[in-house]
Amino acid sequence: MKLSSPHKLKDIAELINCTFEGDATHLITGLNEIHMVEHGDIVFVDHPKYYDKALQSKATTILINKNVTCPEGKALLISDDPFRDYNKLVRHFYPVNYSQKQISDSAKVGKDSIIMPGVYLGNNVTIGNNCVIHPNVVIYNDCHIGNNVIIHANCVIGADAFYYKKRADMFDKMISCGRVIIEDDVEIGPMCTVDKGVSGDTRIGAGTKMDNHVQIGHDTQVGKMCLMASQVGVAGVVKIEDGVTLWGQAGIRSDVTIGKGAVLLAQAGLGEDIPAGKTYFGSPAGDARAKMKEVAALKMLPDLIKKLNA
Amino acid sequence: MKLSSPHKLKDIAELINCTFEGDATHLITGLNEIHMVEHGDIVFVDHPKYYDKALQSKATTILINKNVTCPEGKALLISDDPFRDYNKLVRHFYPVNYSQKQISDSAKVGKDSIIMPGVYLGNNVTIGNNCVIHPNVVIYNDCHIGNNVIIHANCVIGADAFYYKKRADMFDKMISCGRVIIEDDVEIGPMCTVDKGVSGDTRIGAGTKMDNHVQIGHDTQVGKMCLMASQVGVAGVVKIEDGVTLWGQAGIRSDVTIGKGAVLLAQAGLGEDIPAGKTYFGSPAGDARAKMKEVAALKMLPDLIKKLNA
Amino acid sequence: MKLSSPHKLKDIAELINCTFEGDATHLITGLNEIHMVEHGDIVFVDHPKYYDKALQSKATTILINKNVTCPEGKALLISDDPFRDYNKLVRHFYPVNYSQKQISDSAKVGKDSIIMPGVYLGNNVTIGNNCVIHPNVVIYNDCHIGNNVIIHANCVIGADAFYYKKRADMFDKMISCGRVIIEDDVEIGPMCTVDKGVSGDTRIGAGTKMDNHVQIGHDTQVGKMCLMASQVGVAGVVKIEDGVTLWGQAGIRSDVTIGKGAVLLAQAGLGEDIPAGKTYFGSPAGDARAKMKEVAALKMLPDLIKKLNA
Repeated sequence: MKLSSPHKLKDIAELINCTFEGDATHLITGLNEIHMVEHGDIVFVDHPKYYDKALQSKATTILINKNVTCPEGKALLISDDPFRDYNKLVRHFYPVNYSQKQISDSAKVGKDSIIMPGVYLGNNVTIGNNCVIHPNVVIYNDCHIGNNVIIHANCVIGADAFYYKKRADMFDKMISCGRVIIEDDVEIGPMCTVDKGVSGDTRIGAGTKMDNHVQIGHDTQVGKMCLMASQVGVAGVVKIEDGVTLWGQAGIRSDVTIGKGAVLLAQAGLGEDIPAGKTYFGSPAGDARAKMKEVAALKMLPDLIKKLNA
Repeated sequence: MKLSSPHKLKDIAELINCTFEGDATHLITGLNEIHMVEHGDIVFVDHPKYYDKALQSKATTILINKNVTCPEGKALLISDDPFRDYNKLVRHFYPVNYSQKQISDSAKVGKDSIIMPGVYLGNNVTIGNNCVIHPNVVIYNDCHIGNNVIIHANCVIGADAFYYKKRADMFDKMISCGRVIIEDDVEIGPMCTVDKGVSGDTRIGAGTKMDNHVQIGHDTQVGKMCLMASQVGVAGVVKIEDGVTLWGQAGIRSDVTIGKGAVLLAQAGLGEDIPAGKTYFGSPAGDARAKMKEVAALKMLPDLIKKLNA
Repeated sequence: MKLSSPHKLKDIAELINCTFEGDATHLITGLNEIHMVEHGDIVFVDHPKYYDKALQSKATTILINKNVTCPEGKALLISDDPFRDYNKLVRHFYPVNYSQKQISDSAKVGKDSIIMPGVYLGNNVTIGNNCVIHPNVVIYNDCHIGNNVIIHANCVIGADAFYYKKRADMFDKMISCGRVIIEDDVEIGPMCTVDKGVSGDTRIGAGTKMDNHVQIGHDTQVGKMCLMASQVGVAGVVKIEDGVTLWGQAGIRSDVTIGKGAVLLAQAGLGEDIPAGKTYFGSPAGDARAKMKEVAALKMLPDLIKKLNA
């Protein structure tokens, strides 16, 4: 999330009632989680394991639970509970605001676009030109839909990230304040979900086509002209490059990258990166040719064991 | 289902026009299917294979298609078609009743709860305090939602159990008259389904969080502070203890138990119990460490076969 | 799609501004894609690999991008872009027409059927007698629902086929003009999708029961009294014969046939035909007994490799 105007370190520290290290007038322009941060952002970190990653990220202000050495040109916000205080900042700059109208007053719909009955458009939603939004689609606050986009019935665009911090007796919810951006010429089948970014954007690239029941997690970046068959599940913070094909019921773990033009076969379960142009298969997924050899070899195994025992 | 008042054996026998064994004034206080029965309930059984299980269950009245020896302190209802007559009783005590209003007159919504546009709340639905029910969520009759619960867009809570008896030329539907109970502090992602109990309750324990497209079958009991990632499928009559984690696209067969704090990895297909604290993987699922060894061994198999052939 | 009246070859050629081979008065009565064509239909073909299949199909007019020898009794429409011109014909005979009313003026609902709040019924939708259509179900134009059918909340019936032609810089959408036919006594769980045929019918046979989150692709034919558990995914142009059982999360590739009474076990991934009465398992799926032997053998493999190394 970008702040509507830059804020001084000292003022932010006051908001969350914590101390700081660095120039009191050091400027903060946004906030985000570690995978997505940019210059000017606050990032939060509360586990020593990730201190270095956060301190060396693009974020220029680190909300942290220890007074460590502050990197040159950056600043620290020192809190006993960075997660809680990050959420406090999100809530401050992004107050809860649910439109109770089906089409919110701040939603904008472009020329020649058709909004069918039962559709819900939250605050600040924009729909481009020449779109069809089929019945009972729900688009949460702040999502942007390009031109010539078709969204089939009952899709949900922009629900919250599935992101919690485990406490002793509860899961503490990371408050999502990001968006979903659907670029031009995308078609999304019925019953798909695309979650909003925690603080940045989840993006579906131009010309991509999704079949039914597909799930796209928070902050995931889908390239242009990708194809996703039915019931594909993509976790959060995944990078899918242009021209990728995902076949039915394939699943992808968070934080992996699928290279340009790669293919993931049906029911594959991907836990690692796929290089550009490669085809992967299996659960856990690997190079399809190697996996097919394993499938063939496994067919021979029962007889092989019999022979070896004899 | 509990009856609103206890009924005498003789009166119930008259309702379904069957004979009985036992004290005519023996009391019946409810009815349920075999997995969920309690003292006072009627259970039905129509296959000799399950006679003993039904007769020895907690149910105190057995609706059965043979005049067997009646256990001490219990009673029999003897019918040529126990399934048909069980359904007849359900229909009698639980007549069809669909509210045609979006928010039924008997639905109750607690303080500070937000019901968004397009939500349907059936008869006798209760929503606790401080909840958000997002657009187009459908909650069937008699379901109860606790406090501080978030249900994301397009979820369906309380649809009928998937439960049929196969007849020669049709599937005969078991009529569901149970409920769904969602405890406090639960969050359910968009597009999830939680089916009602056949006659008892399906329960989601306090503090549990579900991602998108999750399916929970009838009469399943989910403990407190469980996490379920996207597209997880849980069949009916499953017991998930507290603190269990189910990763994306994992599937669970009916009638298994997952012990406290256990983990089921992505795409695993579980057909047996998991002991507390264990991690399972694979389809069919087994102990994750053993399964990972199998995955590694299988990678070596094509070369091994080549060598053995040479 | 059947045309409302037969059209002459010459008139169709004029509509899409192409040349033709054959009798100018040769009659065209419909159009469809290659898997589903019948006598009187136009079929399109634009790849030499499929010329013979198209020319020898039941279609009596072939929309083709080369002047080949015309089979006896048939006719050719010769176009530089058959896919584009096929779509042009679909659009001509099946103009876009979205009802903006929740229940379209041309929808027909039979006796004693209950249409719950939030349901959308498109143009020319028919619902038989004694049905229950639960809240927020969406039924696209031209779909037909039989008698005694129950469709649970938030299902989407009749969305477009997932069918695109890859161009250099875009996916070109095949325009769907087909229907979904749901026969009598079918029950469909919440959150299911059944896509319409590209030009013909997708069909769910009488007495079939589907659990939640099931996906049925375009032009798929499901027989009578089939059972499908939760999260099953069936691609397009699949033939499922009577009495088939598909267990949870099973997936089926396009263009395969599952014989009468066959069973596909949970999470199986089917890429080939199953003969009648057989049980299949695994991904890729094969005969269940053979696959279970492989599972058992694989368990022994890590130790076997250790021994062979020693």
